Amino acid sequence: MEERTEIASLGEFGLIEHLTKNFEIQNASTIVPVGDDAAVIDHYGKQTVLTNDLLIEGVHFDLMYTPLKHLGYKTVVVNVSDIYAMNATPTQILLGLGFSNRFSVEALDEFYAGVHAACDEYGVDLIGGDTSTSQKGFIISCTAVGEVAPDKYVRRNGAKKGDLLCVSGDLGAAFLGLTLLEREKRIFLENPQVQPDLEGEKYTVGRLLKPEARKDIIRFFEEAELTPTAMIDVSDGLSSEILHICKQSNLGCVLYEEKIPIAEETREAAFKFNLDPTTCALSGGEDYELLFTISQSDYDKVKEHPQISVVGFLNEAEEGRIIYTKGGTKHALTAQGWNAFNKGGA
Amino acid sequence: MEERTEIASLGEFGLIEHLTKNFEIQNASTIVPVGDDAAVIDHYGKQTVLTNDLLIEGVHFDLMYTPLKHLGYKTVVVNVSDIYAMNATPTQILLGLGFSNRFSVEALDEFYAGVHAACDEYGVDLIGGDTSTSQKGFIISCTAVGEVAPDKYVRRNGAKKGDLLCVSGDLGAAFLGLTLLEREKRIFLENPQVQPDLEGEKYTVGRLLKPEARKDIIRFFEEAELTPTAMIDVSDGLSSEILHICKQSNLGCVLYEEKIPIAEETREAAFKFNLDPTTCALSGGEDYELLFTISQSDYDKVKEHPQISVVGFLNEAEEGRIIYTKGGTKHALTAQGWNAFNKGGA
Repeated sequence: MEERTEIASLGEFGLIEHLTKNFEIQNASTIVPVGDDAAVIDHYGKQTVLTNDLLIEGVHFDLMYTPLKHLGYKTVVVNVSDIYAMNATPTQILLGLGFSNRFSVEALDEFYAGVHAACDEYGVDLIGGDTSTSQKGFIISCTAVGEVAPDKYVRRNGAKKGDLLCVSGDLGAAFLGLTLLEREKRIFLENPQVQPDLEGEKYTVGRLLKPEARKDIIRFFEEAELTPTAMIDVSDGLSSEILHICKQSNLGCVLYEEKIPIAEETREAAFKFNLDPTTCALSGGEDYELLFTISQSDYDKVKEHPQISVVGFLNEAEEGRIIYTKGGTKHALTAQGWNAFNKGGA
Repeated sequence: MEERTEIASLGEFGLIEHLTKNFEIQNASTIVPVGDDAAVIDHYGKQTVLTNDLLIEGVHFDLMYTPLKHLGYKTVVVNVSDIYAMNATPTQILLGLGFSNRFSVEALDEFYAGVHAACDEYGVDLIGGDTSTSQKGFIISCTAVGEVAPDKYVRRNGAKKGDLLCVSGDLGAAFLGLTLLEREKRIFLENPQVQPDLEGEKYTVGRLLKPEARKDIIRFFEEAELTPTAMIDVSDGLSSEILHICKQSNLGCVLYEEKIPIAEETREAAFKFNLDPTTCALSGGEDYELLFTISQSDYDKVKEHPQISVVGFLNEAEEGRIIYTKGGTKHALTAQGWNAFNKGGA
């Protein structure tokens, strides 16, 4: 029989102690971690980068098919991804959790096991752990802290005309993983006897449930002495992110459909659902790849990198924001994003 | 007629822009504020202090009697209070908001007006503004960042035997404000014709709905060249906070009931409800005063301060954690906190 410890049996402070006791400090800059009014970190000679996210059950995740351990891992990934997208190194996170009494201590332990695994993977220290009851569902607030050498951070607004648009890894898989899990959920709700059919879908489902942030790309930038002119992480779909860079840099762009990196598994999954793989890459989300722009003179540094694709370039704002399809026709690039799909808009 | 703009009409990014456009940067250390993947702050020669809080409708606040503007103000106060409790100066905050579609843009504007007023009052910059829909209710996540000269932060665990227990301002008022508003809510729900009776209760209700954090006390410490040995803010009631300091400093304590500062308005309100004012101060919460310990040799620095009361001293752990009542009897100090009241436990 599975153990179930009621949260009330530990009390609020006992619970925080219980959940955070196995976290070891990984950064010398972490001076005071969890357990006081506030955490203290030291950033002599560095600049501090901060980001926060609020994740709400039923809006950002569905616990029917999301294991809590994966959710804990993904919470950290989503936040450190924003730190990497500034060309910085994540160093600490603060977590706030709200949960109704349907959750046991064991359930929270699962969540924290995932947080722990991600903290190890990305070398970050947990330095804040507020917990609270909620009237309904599971609510996660996460703040990530990172550091960067003075003025080495990369914003969204630094792209220049002629810069190359680059993207890491491949796109669209997480959206197809979601589509698949939503289908299996519907089938299960109609007939709980039917076992989920996830055969051959490990890649897309894995990309949704346990994404990784591209710390390797940030390390590569350092080794290659390459500083992108602008950067953003791909959480809402490629087109939405490109449009952010265009808007904030006051530029237009040209994107080539044939250059958009899409994994073979993603293409196959898309075809099964009668979806266009390019649309999934453009308007799906949660891939947590990095979209960045580089000066043309840096092209030689990225051209051999197996995890970086050049997908287009930046142009005068007056030239518009354009995508050339494989057939050679020209369309305006529009942002639909994740939400458009959820509403059946794509 | 009141204006009502649907949030969907602005879109997520339009909404953040709309809500944050009037915030001016107040700290030179704020390099990149709201609007990128992450914020960037500069802390050369200082240490960074961080804290976060998750506030959930129906758990931490009741919108039936909490104006959204006050709630925005209080959100900032609650977080900067934790920064002051480290003897640090708050410099930035990051906000995450979740809200269902019952909220209009005007409602969020009200909330942000309160945030803005508090940012001005406490000199902090808003540097992060994640927003999200929620399935139910209003959810607030707030992270505050502060700075402190190297190794000048004050933790909960630094108290020594013989140190004096001091508290700022007065206690118990916020709990009585809550008791009153809960009573008026019940009366209103039973008979919506009855007007709320808040005559003479401005002080207690104000302490609940629009608390202030004690930046004046932190400034006084600096001017008086006084560094407390331990400090915590009073959010859960005096006894709970004293026990935190005792536990983390591995000490016992003696507290004198007659020394606990309670405002005349608080006493009067307590008597109306047949409550003991001391119990309200010990076990109520949300006063956001500072509880701190100082070496006896620093007594002369605080003895004339009209906003600081010496309420007891720290002792060997073996001597226990004790309160002497006005009648001279001796009791063990126990933590009941805010929740005990809500459950009718006090």
